[in-house]
Amino acid sequence: MGTEFLKIKECDEATEIIQKLFDEKLNQQSEEILVTESYGRILFEDVYSKMDFPPFDKALKDGFAILAEDSFGASEESPKTLDVIDFLEAGATTDKKVEKGKCIEISTGAAMPEGAESVVMVEYAEKSDGKVNLLTTATPTQDVARKGSDIEEGKLILKKGDFLNPGKIGVLLSQGFETIEVYKKPILGVISSGNEISLQGEGLTYGKIYDVNGGMIKNAAISCGADAHFLGIMRDNYDEVKHKITDALKEADIIICSGGTSAGLGDVLNSVLEELGEVYIHGISVQPGKPTIIGVIEDKLVIGLPGNPVSALMIFNAFIAEPLTKLAGIDKDFELDTVKGKMTRRIHSPVGRMQYQLVKVDGKDIHPIFKDSGAIFSLSTADGYVKVPKSVELLDEGEEVEVYLFN
Amino acid sequence: MGTEFLKIKECDEATEIIQKLFDEKLNQQSEEILVTESYGRILFEDVYSKMDFPPFDKALKDGFAILAEDSFGASEESPKTLDVIDFLEAGATTDKKVEKGKCIEISTGAAMPEGAESVVMVEYAEKSDGKVNLLTTATPTQDVARKGSDIEEGKLILKKGDFLNPGKIGVLLSQGFETIEVYKKPILGVISSGNEISLQGEGLTYGKIYDVNGGMIKNAAISCGADAHFLGIMRDNYDEVKHKITDALKEADIIICSGGTSAGLGDVLNSVLEELGEVYIHGISVQPGKPTIIGVIEDKLVIGLPGNPVSALMIFNAFIAEPLTKLAGIDKDFELDTVKGKMTRRIHSPVGRMQYQLVKVDGKDIHPIFKDSGAIFSLSTADGYVKVPKSVELLDEGEEVEVYLFN
Repeated sequence: MGTEFLKIKECDEATEIIQKLFDEKLNQQSEEILVTESYGRILFEDVYSKMDFPPFDKALKDGFAILAEDSFGASEESPKTLDVIDFLEAGATTDKKVEKGKCIEISTGAAMPEGAESVVMVEYAEKSDGKVNLLTTATPTQDVARKGSDIEEGKLILKKGDFLNPGKIGVLLSQGFETIEVYKKPILGVISSGNEISLQGEGLTYGKIYDVNGGMIKNAAISCGADAHFLGIMRDNYDEVKHKITDALKEADIIICSGGTSAGLGDVLNSVLEELGEVYIHGISVQPGKPTIIGVIEDKLVIGLPGNPVSALMIFNAFIAEPLTKLAGIDKDFELDTVKGKMTRRIHSPVGRMQYQLVKVDGKDIHPIFKDSGAIFSLSTADGYVKVPKSVELLDEGEEVEVYLFN
Repeated sequence: MGTEFLKIKECDEATEIIQKLFDEKLNQQSEEILVTESYGRILFEDVYSKMDFPPFDKALKDGFAILAEDSFGASEESPKTLDVIDFLEAGATTDKKVEKGKCIEISTGAAMPEGAESVVMVEYAEKSDGKVNLLTTATPTQDVARKGSDIEEGKLILKKGDFLNPGKIGVLLSQGFETIEVYKKPILGVISSGNEISLQGEGLTYGKIYDVNGGMIKNAAISCGADAHFLGIMRDNYDEVKHKITDALKEADIIICSGGTSAGLGDVLNSVLEELGEVYIHGISVQPGKPTIIGVIEDKLVIGLPGNPVSALMIFNAFIAEPLTKLAGIDKDFELDTVKGKMTRRIHSPVGRMQYQLVKVDGKDIHPIFKDSGAIFSLSTADGYVKVPKSVELLDEGEEVEVYLFN
């Protein structure tokens, strides 16, 4: 009892311990995936260009590839005439060479033939019978993108931590990358607990309710960039909890259990963790959600959330979402996901514990949602929550508050 | 030539035509998916509660289920004594009944036994030898959540268009929903065109470049909520384009082609569309990206983007992303995805065409990215683009502009 009491933590302390456990026990890992399947993933490495781009001097317009000096002085009034010795489409090559008095007709995107310096656009040329009249003077390199002018080989083009959006995917593809190293999604197993819960699709006998936490916390973890799996339901007895967690540890880096009464799973999970590993937090001084357990087994995290779905999601959002998102390599500023507004009604809060008050945001109006903490339907209307510090007994109507938004 | 000229559209007109084609030719469709796999999907139907929640009168605390009047007058000084006739865990039921002078020990989450009205918390009771001393007076319904108090059967709980976040998924699970109707992702096929392009993994012979648009536009469509597939490369000849598009139409609702020189694919695609369907737009008065084609075959959309990847992505973002996102059921306010700031350098713009200028955003500083339009590496640094209206020749340093952000 004494030890357990010592493991009840204030919110700030709990936040710090959990972040530290994530940092010390769990490694950011990488995996190689196809670039074409990489939308939304996070680069695990700096990426350098493998080749000059464009990889050759490239015509930027449809026209005639010439020696620049062959056009000097040309105008509509006094055109210069050249022999057209070949036609070069994009993707094609020629062994003919551009020399004084000769040119090659060329398409946008084609590699400039040997000798040629400039392109005279088709709009400034008149072609007939194997000859062309140039109607304008071209500067050297006009309408030519020089080899490596966009990027040279060996340059840093993307950085570790970059979010792979379509543009960055395009950059990788242009360099011929078929695969790329991205952050591996942390593997997370979710287990629900409690004699009263049934799975959807099973009949619901009297006294039972459907399991919510399994599917909900799994999806909350997915929203943080994890590869999360629901591993089913266990009963709150020592052997079953030990067996289920030992099994889950073979697959997952992080296990999140929830449910049972606060006395039930909490105590059993605590004992199992003490046998197999170490308990770091047993209770957080917060309402709702006090019965939260954080432990470590073989450098993997085992988290016990309250069974009440509203409390479980609040604790997940307030304490687990940020370190999990960081572990997934996502550089998200959680501080930015807040909005400010004014309370539309007064709320009372228990002194001595941090309270998380669910609210609905309507412009600058912050409406508190009053429901007992088991009221799952508050989750369909809540936009986020307000933190009421443990020393504050009352938030008055009209008081300015900061809302931590869900998602 | 006359007809084609008529089909060159100003930006606003093109936006309107494309939205109208999406609205008229393509239907928002639904599919049934597992609730546990539904994170990020969009509800296709209003959802009503299937049952009262809680589905029974539920104990909110561990304690003793009693008739309220049996506790009236009880205090620490003068406890009231009752017989404990049973113990009820969450999920269990009993056929015993609470009557005057009798109570049932009960766990949080258990269904209240017949006859019982209130729960006296275990903290306010002393149990010994089949009896309990109540140390406090309970009001009727104290620490009991009444059947249906959270939500009654038949109430609207979620709305068509709702984004399925973890909380809303929790609400669906609590009602026993195994599956749910969500917006079906529009099926989109992406085809690249051009003799000069090679696939990643193939060797790159002289004069060739890697295909960028296939993987990039596919992922841009995925970012808009589509189920997008890259269907490979075609050459710019009539038979191959006709064959490839006819094939793709069997699977996809929308086909996006790109590539070839502006004269190449544009003309071929135009002819194929005129044979099999109808061309609505052939050219948009915008830089970059003029050679854009929008047509319809059998109520499916066929879109031809410029081959230049920067132009292709710009046209996609400026004209296709918004109607595609709406088709996917996503209620996104594209106007919100803008930021304002000041140009850090002067830019010139061609008169007579809308120009999209790529920029990098650094706080309130908007840096124009100067590169020829073939410069794919601008896509790794660009945050978005500024629209320079066709009548404007110059945006001066320090001028305030609005940036349309990528993603």
